[in-house]
Amino acid sequence: MPRIDLPVELPGITGLFNFKPTTGVKLREMFHELLRGPGPLSFLDRERIAARVSKVSRCQYCFRSHDAAARALEAGAGGESSTADGSDLKLSALLRLAEAVALGGDQVSDQHVESARLAGANDEEIHDTVLIAAAFCLANRYVDGLGAITPDDDAAYDAIGLHLATNGYLGARPANGQYRAS
Amino acid sequence: MPRIDLPVELPGITGLFNFKPTTGVKLREMFHELLRGPGPLSFLDRERIAARVSKVSRCQYCFRSHDAAARALEAGAGGESSTADGSDLKLSALLRLAEAVALGGDQVSDQHVESARLAGANDEEIHDTVLIAAAFCLANRYVDGLGAITPDDDAAYDAIGLHLATNGYLGARPANGQYRAS
Repeated sequence: MPRIDLPVELPGITGLFNFKPTTGVKLREMFHELLRGPGPLSFLDRERIAARVSKVSRCQYCFRSHDAAARALEAGAGGESSTADGSDLKLSALLRLAEAVALGGDQVSDQHVESARLAGANDEEIHDTVLIAAAFCLANRYVDGLGAITPDDDAAYDAIGLHLATNGYLGARPANGQYRAS
Repeated sequence: MPRIDLPVELPGITGLFNFKPTTGVKLREMFHELLRGPGPLSFLDRERIAARVSKVSRCQYCFRSHDAAARALEAGAGGESSTADGSDLKLSALLRLAEAVALGGDQVSDQHVESARLAGANDEEIHDTVLIAAAFCLANRYVDGLGAITPDDDAAYDAIGLHLATNGYLGARPANGQYRAS
C-alpha cells in the first residue's frame, strides 16, 4: 500500500517520479546517464548490477524490473550486441563488488576491488560498478520506503523490462519533444 | 586510501564527480534539486536529514560535511531564516523515518510514516524525507565504497559546510557560465 498519494496506473518508481516532477526529472536523467551513458560496461552488465543490488536489498519492484530489462537486452532489444560483454570472471567479480556496496560502503574491502582488477576490470569499470550499485540503493529505498505500487504479474515486468531496454530511463517524451523540465 | 586514481586536492565526493564528469554533473544536479530545490522542508532540515543518514551509514566524510553545512545554515549562511523550520516534534519524526530508510527500504514501517503525520508532516514532506535519505545512501556508499579521500581536520569540514550552505551542490561554475556538460 502506498504511503503517499500515488496514481494507481503508474507502478513503482514511475509513480514516485510523477508525484514530484521537479525531482523526478533529475533522477531520470541521473539513472539514464548511469545505465545508458558513455562507459565501458555493456548496458546488459549494468542492468545485471541493478538487478543484483535490488535482490540483495529485497526490493521486488526493482529486482523484477531490471532482471526483465537484462533479459530483454539479452534477447536483442535496444540493439546492443551481447558480445560487447566482458569475461564471465570479470562480471562475477564486479557483481560481488556491487553486492558489498549494497550491504554498505564500509562493507567494501580492498579484496573486492583487487579481485575485480585481477579479473581485468579497470578504474572506470570499478567506479561505474560502485556508482550504479549505490544508485540502486537509492532506488530500492525510495520505492519500498514509500510503499510504491508493486505489480505481482510477470507480464507487467516483461513490459517494463522491454521499455527500459528499448528506451532507457528518460520516460515518455512530452509533446514539445523536450525531456528537460528546465 | 582511494581505490581508483583520484586527485588528492579534491576530497570526498568532489573527487569522484571529477573522476567522471559525465556522471558527476547529473549527480550534482540531482543533489542540488533535492537539497536546495522547491519543497516544504527548510534547507537546514534537509541537511540534518543528510547528516543523520550519513551517521547511521558510518560515512565520516558525508556526516561531517553535512553536519557542518547544517551548522553554517544555523549561523545564517545561505540567507535562509531558521524560523522556516517546522516543529521539533515533526523534525524528530522525520529524522526517525530517515534513519529507517538508511537501514533499508523494508525497514520503514507504517508506524514511522504515521508518527510523522501525527506530528504534522504532509505527503510532500514524507516524500522528500524518504528521497533525501535514500540519496544519501547513494552518497555514503559511493564515497566509502571507492575509498574517497576523507580529511581528518575540522577546518576542512567547516570550509565544505560553508561552501554547501552558501552555494549548494552544483559546484564551481565553469568559465562559460554553463553548469551542464551537454
